[in-house]
Amino acid sequence: MKIDNLLKQVEFIKEIDKIKYIQRKTKLFNSDRHENDAEHSWHLAMMAIVLSEHANEQIDVLKVLKMVLIHDIVEIDAGDIFIYDSVKNHSNTKEELKAAKRIFGMLPTEQAQEFIAIWEEFEEGETNEAKFAKAMDRFEPLLQNTSNNGGTWSEFNVKYESVYDKKKLIKKGSKSIWGFAEELINESVKNGILKK
Amino acid sequence: MKIDNLLKQVEFIKEIDKIKYIQRKTKLFNSDRHENDAEHSWHLAMMAIVLSEHANEQIDVLKVLKMVLIHDIVEIDAGDIFIYDSVKNHSNTKEELKAAKRIFGMLPTEQAQEFIAIWEEFEEGETNEAKFAKAMDRFEPLLQNTSNNGGTWSEFNVKYESVYDKKKLIKKGSKSIWGFAEELINESVKNGILKK
Repeated sequence: MKIDNLLKQVEFIKEIDKIKYIQRKTKLFNSDRHENDAEHSWHLAMMAIVLSEHANEQIDVLKVLKMVLIHDIVEIDAGDIFIYDSVKNHSNTKEELKAAKRIFGMLPTEQAQEFIAIWEEFEEGETNEAKFAKAMDRFEPLLQNTSNNGGTWSEFNVKYESVYDKKKLIKKGSKSIWGFAEELINESVKNGILKK
Repeated sequence: MKIDNLLKQVEFIKEIDKIKYIQRKTKLFNSDRHENDAEHSWHLAMMAIVLSEHANEQIDVLKVLKMVLIHDIVEIDAGDIFIYDSVKNHSNTKEELKAAKRIFGMLPTEQAQEFIAIWEEFEEGETNEAKFAKAMDRFEPLLQNTSNNGGTWSEFNVKYESVYDKKKLIKKGSKSIWGFAEELINESVKNGILKK
Protein backbone atom coordinates (compact mmCIF):
# COMPACT_ATOMS: atom_id res chain seq x y z
CA MET A 1 0.00 0.00 0.00
CA LYS A 2 2.73 2.44 1.03
CA ILE A 3 4.84 1.46 -1.98
CA ASP A 4 1.79 1.90 -4.28
CA ASN A 5 1.42 5.42 -2.89
CA LEU A 6 5.12 6.13 -3.36
CA LEU A 7 5.05 5.14 -7.03
CA LYS A 8 2.10 7.45 -7.70
CA GLN A 9 3.72 10.27 -5.73
CA VAL A 10 6.99 9.96 -7.68
CA GLU A 11 5.09 10.25 -10.98
CA PHE A 12 3.36 13.38 -9.66
CA ILE A 13 6.72 14.85 -8.53
CA LYS A 14 8.10 14.35 -12.04
CA GLU A 15 4.99 15.80 -13.70
CA ILE A 16 4.98 19.05 -11.73
CA ASP A 17 8.53 19.82 -12.90
CA LYS A 18 6.73 21.32 -15.91
CA ILE A 19 5.75 24.48 -14.04
CA LYS A 20 9.42 25.51 -14.28
CA TYR A 21 8.77 26.14 -17.99
CA ILE A 22 5.68 28.31 -17.49
CA GLN A 23 6.71 31.94 -17.88
CA ARG A 24 4.74 34.63 -16.09
CA LYS A 25 4.26 38.12 -17.48
CA THR A 26 6.11 39.68 -14.54
CA LYS A 27 9.87 39.86 -14.35
CA LEU A 28 12.35 39.18 -11.56
CA PHE A 29 13.35 42.02 -9.27
CA ASN A 30 15.81 44.32 -11.08
CA SER A 31 15.94 42.12 -14.15
CA ASP A 32 14.62 41.63 -17.64
CA ARG A 33 14.15 37.90 -17.23
CA HIS A 34 10.58 36.65 -16.80
CA GLU A 35 9.73 34.74 -13.65
CA ASN A 36 8.48 31.17 -13.96
CA ASP A 37 5.73 29.57 -11.90
CA ALA A 38 8.09 27.53 -9.68
CA GLU A 39 10.14 30.60 -8.74
CA HIS A 40 6.94 32.57 -8.13
CA SER A 41 5.48 29.83 -5.90
CA TRP A 42 8.71 29.60 -3.88
CA HIS A 43 8.70 33.36 -3.36
CA LEU A 44 5.07 33.40 -2.22
CA ALA A 45 5.84 30.61 0.27
CA MET A 46 8.75 32.62 1.69
CA MET A 47 6.55 35.72 1.89
CA ALA A 48 3.79 33.80 3.68
CA ILE A 49 6.27 32.57 6.30
CA VAL A 50 7.95 35.94 6.77
CA LEU A 51 4.79 38.08 6.76
CA SER A 52 2.33 35.83 8.64
CA GLU A 53 2.33 38.14 11.68
CA HIS A 54 0.52 40.75 9.54
CA ALA A 55 -2.51 38.57 8.74
CA ASN A 56 -5.84 40.11 9.78
CA GLU A 57 -6.94 36.88 11.43
CA GLN A 58 -5.24 33.85 12.99
CA ILE A 59 -4.03 31.65 10.11
CA ASP A 60 -2.79 28.08 9.74
CA VAL A 61 0.55 28.84 8.05
CA LEU A 62 1.01 25.24 6.85
CA LYS A 63 -2.28 25.45 4.95
CA VAL A 64 -1.31 28.81 3.42
CA LEU A 65 1.99 27.26 2.30
CA LYS A 66 0.20 24.35 0.67
CA MET A 67 -2.06 26.83 -1.15
CA VAL A 68 0.72 29.02 -2.55
CA LEU A 69 2.98 26.08 -3.41
CA ILE A 70 0.31 24.29 -5.46
CA HIS A 71 -1.83 27.21 -6.75
CA ASP A 72 -0.21 27.41 -10.19
CA ILE A 73 0.21 23.69 -10.92
CA VAL A 74 -3.05 23.73 -12.94
CA GLU A 75 -1.27 26.03 -15.42
CA ILE A 76 0.65 22.99 -16.71
CA ASP A 77 -2.52 22.21 -18.70
CA ALA A 78 -4.42 25.51 -18.59
CA GLY A 79 -1.57 28.04 -19.14
CA ASP A 80 -0.88 31.35 -17.43
CA ILE A 81 -3.48 34.07 -17.96
CA PHE A 82 -2.35 37.67 -17.43
CA ILE A 83 -4.21 39.25 -14.50
CA TYR A 84 -5.05 42.36 -16.59
CA ASP A 85 -6.33 40.30 -19.54
CA SER A 86 -9.77 41.78 -20.26
CA VAL A 87 -10.93 38.97 -22.55
CA LYS A 88 -10.04 35.82 -20.64
CA ASN A 89 -11.21 35.43 -17.06
CA HIS A 90 -8.15 35.09 -14.83
CA SER A 91 -9.21 32.24 -12.63
CA ASN A 92 -11.48 29.32 -12.03
CA THR A 93 -11.97 28.48 -15.64
CA LYS A 94 -13.28 25.08 -16.65
CA GLU A 95 -9.84 24.22 -18.04
CA GLU A 96 -8.25 24.88 -14.65
CA LEU A 97 -10.66 22.57 -12.85
CA LYS A 98 -10.05 19.87 -15.45
CA ALA A 99 -6.29 20.37 -14.99
CA ALA A 100 -6.60 20.13 -11.20
CA LYS A 101 -8.48 16.86 -11.53
CA ARG A 102 -5.96 15.37 -13.96
CA ILE A 103 -2.74 16.47 -12.23
CA PHE A 104 -3.72 16.15 -8.54
CA GLY A 105 -5.56 12.99 -9.60
CA MET A 106 -2.16 11.34 -10.18
CA LEU A 107 -1.74 11.19 -6.37
CA PRO A 108 -3.20 8.51 -4.08
CA THR A 109 -6.98 9.10 -3.72
CA GLU A 110 -7.06 10.77 -0.29
CA GLN A 111 -4.16 13.04 -1.12
CA ALA A 112 -5.66 13.92 -4.50
CA GLN A 113 -8.89 14.94 -2.79
CA GLU A 114 -6.99 17.04 -0.23
CA PHE A 115 -5.03 18.88 -2.94
CA ILE A 116 -8.11 19.58 -5.08
CA ALA A 117 -9.95 20.89 -2.01
CA ILE A 118 -7.02 23.16 -1.03
CA TRP A 119 -6.74 24.48 -4.58
CA GLU A 120 -10.50 25.18 -4.67
CA GLU A 121 -10.37 26.87 -1.27
CA PHE A 122 -7.60 29.14 -2.56
CA GLU A 123 -9.54 29.96 -5.73
CA GLU A 124 -12.71 30.79 -3.80
CA GLY A 125 -10.73 33.10 -1.51
CA GLU A 126 -13.19 33.03 1.38
CA THR A 127 -11.29 31.46 4.30
CA ASN A 128 -8.67 33.32 6.35
CA GLU A 129 -5.91 31.21 4.80
CA ALA A 130 -7.13 31.79 1.24
CA LYS A 131 -7.43 35.53 1.85
CA PHE A 132 -3.85 35.70 3.11
CA ALA A 133 -2.51 33.46 0.33
CA LYS A 134 -4.21 35.66 -2.28
CA ALA A 135 -2.77 38.76 -0.62
CA MET A 136 0.72 37.29 -1.13
CA ASP A 137 -0.11 36.51 -4.77
CA ARG A 138 -1.11 40.14 -5.37
CA PHE A 139 1.71 41.67 -3.33
CA GLU A 140 4.70 39.96 -5.02
CA PRO A 141 4.20 41.45 -8.53
CA LEU A 142 3.57 44.87 -6.95
CA LEU A 143 7.02 44.67 -5.34
CA GLN A 144 8.49 43.44 -8.64
CA ASN A 145 6.92 46.16 -10.78
CA THR A 146 7.92 48.95 -8.41
CA SER A 147 11.50 47.56 -8.30
CA ASN A 148 11.51 47.24 -12.06
CA ASN A 149 10.67 50.74 -13.16
CA GLY A 150 7.03 49.90 -13.80
CA GLY A 151 7.65 46.42 -15.22
CA THR A 152 4.48 44.94 -16.74
CA TRP A 153 2.50 48.15 -16.07
CA SER A 154 4.66 50.06 -18.55
CA GLU A 155 5.03 47.12 -20.91
CA PHE A 156 1.30 46.46 -21.25
CA ASN A 157 0.08 50.00 -20.58
CA VAL A 158 -1.81 49.06 -17.44
CA LYS A 159 -3.44 52.06 -15.72
CA TYR A 160 -3.60 53.04 -12.04
CA GLU A 161 -7.32 52.24 -11.80
CA SER A 162 -6.84 48.62 -12.91
CA VAL A 163 -3.87 48.14 -10.60
CA TYR A 164 -5.70 49.62 -7.61
CA ASP A 165 -8.75 47.50 -8.39
CA LYS A 166 -6.75 44.23 -8.49
CA LYS A 167 -4.44 45.04 -5.58
CA LYS A 168 -7.12 46.06 -3.09
CA LEU A 169 -7.75 42.35 -2.50
CA ILE A 170 -4.61 42.49 -0.33
CA LYS A 171 -6.68 44.28 2.34
CA LYS A 172 -8.83 41.18 2.90
CA GLY A 173 -5.69 39.27 3.95
CA SER A 174 -3.75 42.00 5.71
CA LYS A 175 -4.70 45.59 6.44
CA SER A 176 -1.13 46.55 7.36
CA ILE A 177 0.36 45.12 4.14
CA TRP A 178 -2.43 46.88 2.21
CA GLY A 179 -1.46 50.18 3.86
CA PHE A 180 2.09 49.68 2.63
CA ALA A 181 0.92 48.52 -0.83
CA GLU A 182 -1.38 51.52 -1.25
CA GLU A 183 1.54 53.85 -0.53
CA LEU A 184 3.67 52.03 -3.09
CA ILE A 185 0.93 52.45 -5.71
CA ASN A 186 0.54 56.16 -4.96
CA GLU A 187 4.31 56.69 -5.07
CA SER A 188 4.40 54.93 -8.43
CA VAL A 189 1.93 57.47 -9.82
CA LYS A 190 4.08 60.32 -8.45
CA ASN A 191 7.24 58.78 -9.93
CA GLY A 192 5.53 58.42 -13.29
CA ILE A 193 5.93 54.63 -13.53
CA LEU A 194 2.14 54.17 -13.26
CA LYS A 195 -0.29 56.38 -15.20
CA LYS A 196 -3.74 57.56 -14.10
CA MET B 1 6.66 48.29 15.62
CA LYS B 2 4.66 46.24 13.14
CA ILE B 3 5.48 48.69 10.33
CA ASP B 4 9.20 48.57 11.29
CA ASN B 5 9.05 44.80 10.95
CA LEU B 6 7.26 45.07 7.61
CA LEU B 7 9.92 47.38 6.15
CA LYS B 8 12.70 44.97 7.14
CA GLN B 9 10.74 41.99 5.85
CA VAL B 10 10.14 43.64 2.47
CA GLU B 11 13.89 44.29 2.08
CA PHE B 12 14.55 40.62 2.88
CA ILE B 13 11.91 39.52 0.35
CA LYS B 14 13.65 41.59 -2.34
CA GLU B 15 17.11 40.32 -1.39
CA ILE B 16 16.24 36.62 -1.62
CA ASP B 17 15.09 37.06 -5.23
CA LYS B 18 18.79 36.53 -6.00
CA ILE B 19 18.57 32.76 -5.50
CA LYS B 20 16.70 32.63 -8.82
CA TYR B 21 20.05 33.38 -10.49
CA ILE B 22 22.00 30.63 -8.72
CA GLN B 23 22.36 27.70 -11.10
CA ARG B 24 22.72 24.21 -9.71
CA LYS B 25 24.76 21.51 -11.41
CA THR B 26 21.68 19.33 -11.89
CA LYS B 27 19.24 19.82 -14.71
CA LEU B 28 15.48 19.83 -14.92
CA PHE B 29 13.65 16.57 -15.59
CA ASN B 30 13.94 15.69 -19.29
CA SER B 31 15.78 18.88 -20.12
CA ASP B 32 19.16 20.39 -20.75
CA ARG B 33 18.43 23.51 -18.72
CA HIS B 34 20.06 23.79 -15.29
CA GLU B 35 17.81 24.14 -12.28
CA ASN B 36 18.13 27.24 -10.12
CA ASP B 37 17.94 27.36 -6.34
CA ALA B 38 14.40 28.79 -6.19
CA GLU B 39 13.02 26.05 -8.44
CA HIS B 40 14.90 23.42 -6.46
CA SER B 41 13.58 24.75 -3.14
CA TRP B 42 10.00 24.79 -4.45
CA HIS B 43 10.33 21.21 -5.63
CA LEU B 44 11.71 20.02 -2.28
CA ALA B 45 8.80 21.73 -0.51
CA MET B 46 6.30 19.93 -2.76
CA MET B 47 8.11 16.63 -2.17
CA ALA B 48 8.09 17.14 1.59
CA ILE B 49 4.31 17.71 1.55
CA VAL B 50 3.57 14.82 -0.79
CA LEU B 51 5.95 12.29 0.78
CA SER B 52 5.60 13.10 4.50
CA GLU B 53 3.72 9.85 5.20
CA HIS B 54 6.97 7.97 4.46
CA ALA B 55 9.03 9.65 7.19
CA ASN B 56 10.59 7.21 9.68
CA GLU B 57 9.39 9.28 12.62
CA GLN B 58 6.58 11.74 13.29
CA ILE B 59 7.59 15.07 11.74
CA ASP B 60 6.42 18.67 11.98
CA VAL B 61 5.78 19.30 8.26
CA LEU B 62 5.72 23.10 8.69
CA LYS B 63 9.25 22.99 10.11
CA VAL B 64 10.46 20.75 7.27
CA LEU B 65 8.98 23.22 4.78
CA LYS B 66 10.77 26.12 6.43
CA MET B 67 14.03 24.16 6.23
CA VAL B 68 13.80 23.26 2.57
CA LEU B 69 12.48 26.68 1.52
CA ILE B 70 15.37 28.56 3.17
CA HIS B 71 18.22 26.02 3.02
CA ASP B 72 19.90 27.48 -0.09
CA ILE B 73 19.46 31.20 0.66
CA VAL B 74 23.03 31.31 2.06
CA GLU B 75 24.26 30.54 -1.47
CA ILE B 76 23.47 34.16 -2.43
CA ASP B 77 26.79 35.00 -0.75
CA ALA B 78 28.52 31.62 -0.52
CA GLY B 79 27.67 30.12 -3.94
CA ASP B 80 26.58 26.60 -4.88
CA ILE B 81 29.12 23.83 -4.21
CA PHE B 82 28.70 20.59 -6.17
CA ILE B 83 27.91 17.69 -3.86
CA TYR B 84 30.62 15.52 -5.49
CA ASP B 85 33.27 18.25 -5.24
CA SER B 86 36.23 16.53 -3.55
CA VAL B 87 38.14 19.72 -2.79
CA LYS B 88 35.52 21.99 -1.23
CA ASN B 89 33.43 20.74 1.64
CA HIS B 90 29.79 20.77 0.59
CA SER B 91 28.20 22.31 3.64
CA ASN B 92 28.60 24.29 6.80
CA THR B 93 31.50 26.33 5.63
CA LYS B 94 32.43 29.52 7.41
CA GLU B 95 31.22 31.51 4.40
CA GLU B 96 27.78 29.92 4.70
CA LEU B 97 27.43 30.83 8.36
CA LYS B 98 28.52 34.38 7.60
CA ALA B 99 25.95 34.50 4.77
CA ALA B 100 23.20 33.20 7.07
CA LYS B 101 23.97 35.92 9.59
CA ARG B 102 23.99 38.67 6.98
CA ILE B 103 20.90 37.64 5.00
CA PHE B 104 18.62 36.31 7.79
CA GLY B 105 19.95 39.21 9.87
CA MET B 106 17.98 41.58 7.61
CA LEU B 107 14.79 40.34 9.32
CA PRO B 108 13.42 41.59 12.67
CA THR B 109 15.59 40.18 15.50
CA GLU B 110 13.36 37.35 16.69
CA GLN B 111 12.63 36.18 13.18
CA ALA B 112 16.31 36.39 12.22
CA GLN B 113 17.19 34.19 15.19
CA GLU B 114 14.48 31.68 14.26
CA PHE B 115 15.69 31.44 10.65
CA ILE B 116 19.36 31.04 11.60
CA ALA B 117 18.40 28.31 14.10
CA ILE B 118 16.30 26.45 11.51
CA TRP B 119 19.10 26.69 8.94
CA GLU B 120 21.62 25.34 11.48
CA GLU B 121 19.27 22.54 12.50
CA PHE B 122 18.99 21.54 8.85
CA GLU B 123 22.76 21.65 8.35
CA GLU B 124 23.40 19.53 11.47
CA GLY B 125 20.87 16.95 10.24
CA GLU B 126 20.17 15.41 13.65
CA THR B 127 16.48 16.09 14.32
CA ASN B 128 13.65 14.12 12.67
CA GLU B 129 12.72 17.18 10.59
CA ALA B 130 16.30 17.78 9.44
CA LYS B 131 16.74 14.11 8.53
CA PHE B 132 13.60 14.16 6.40
CA ALA B 133 14.46 17.52 4.79
CA LYS B 134 17.92 16.21 3.89
CA ALA B 135 16.36 13.05 2.45
CA MET B 136 14.32 15.25 0.10
CA ASP B 137 17.45 17.20 -0.87
CA ARG B 138 19.24 13.96 -1.82
CA PHE B 139 16.22 12.33 -3.49
CA GLU B 140 15.35 15.12 -5.98
CA PRO B 141 18.62 15.02 -8.01
CA LEU B 142 18.46 11.21 -8.03
CA LEU B 143 15.06 11.44 -9.73
CA GLN B 144 16.44 14.10 -12.09
CA ASN B 145 19.56 12.17 -13.07
CA THR B 146 17.67 8.93 -13.67
CA SER B 147 15.11 10.83 -15.79
CA ASN B 148 17.91 12.58 -17.64
CA ASN B 149 19.93 9.67 -18.93
CA GLY B 150 22.52 9.98 -16.15
CA GLY B 151 22.56 13.79 -16.01
CA THR B 152 25.38 15.11 -13.82
CA TRP B 153 26.72 11.55 -13.21
CA SER B 154 27.64 11.21 -16.86
CA GLU B 155 28.63 14.84 -17.26
CA PHE B 156 31.08 14.84 -14.33
CA ASN B 157 32.01 11.15 -14.44
CA VAL B 158 30.61 10.43 -10.98
CA LYS B 159 30.88 6.75 -9.99
CA TYR B 160 28.37 4.41 -8.35
CA GLU B 161 30.32 4.32 -5.08
CA SER B 162 30.16 8.11 -4.61
CA VAL B 163 26.48 8.22 -5.52
CA TYR B 164 25.62 5.38 -3.13
CA ASP B 165 27.67 7.00 -0.39
CA LYS B 166 25.88 10.37 -0.71
CA LYS B 167 22.39 8.96 -1.27
CA LYS B 168 22.34 6.56 1.67
CA LEU B 169 21.56 9.56 3.89
CA ILE B 170 18.00 9.20 2.56
CA LYS B 171 17.60 6.17 4.84
CA LYS B 172 17.89 8.33 7.97
CA GLY B 173 14.79 10.25 6.85
CA SER B 174 12.78 7.48 5.24
CA LYS B 175 13.49 3.76 4.96
CA SER B 176 10.79 3.26 2.34
CA ILE B 177 12.04 6.07 0.10
CA TRP B 178 15.57 4.70 0.52
CA GLY B 179 14.36 1.26 -0.64
CA PHE B 180 13.00 2.87 -3.78
CA ALA B 181 16.13 5.02 -4.24
CA GLU B 182 18.46 2.03 -3.85
CA GLU B 183 16.56 0.22 -6.61
CA LEU B 184 16.84 3.28 -8.87
CA ILE B 185 20.62 3.38 -8.30
CA ASN B 186 21.00 -0.33 -9.04
CA GLU B 187 18.87 -0.04 -12.18
CA SER B 188 21.03 2.88 -13.30
CA VAL B 189 24.10 0.64 -13.14
CA LYS B 190 22.28 -2.06 -15.15
CA ASN B 191 21.17 0.51 -17.74
CA GLY B 192 24.71 1.81 -18.04
CA ILE B 193 23.90 5.40 -17.00
CA LEU B 194 25.95 4.99 -13.79
CA LYS B 195 29.38 3.27 -13.79
CA LYS B 196 30.87 1.11 -11.05
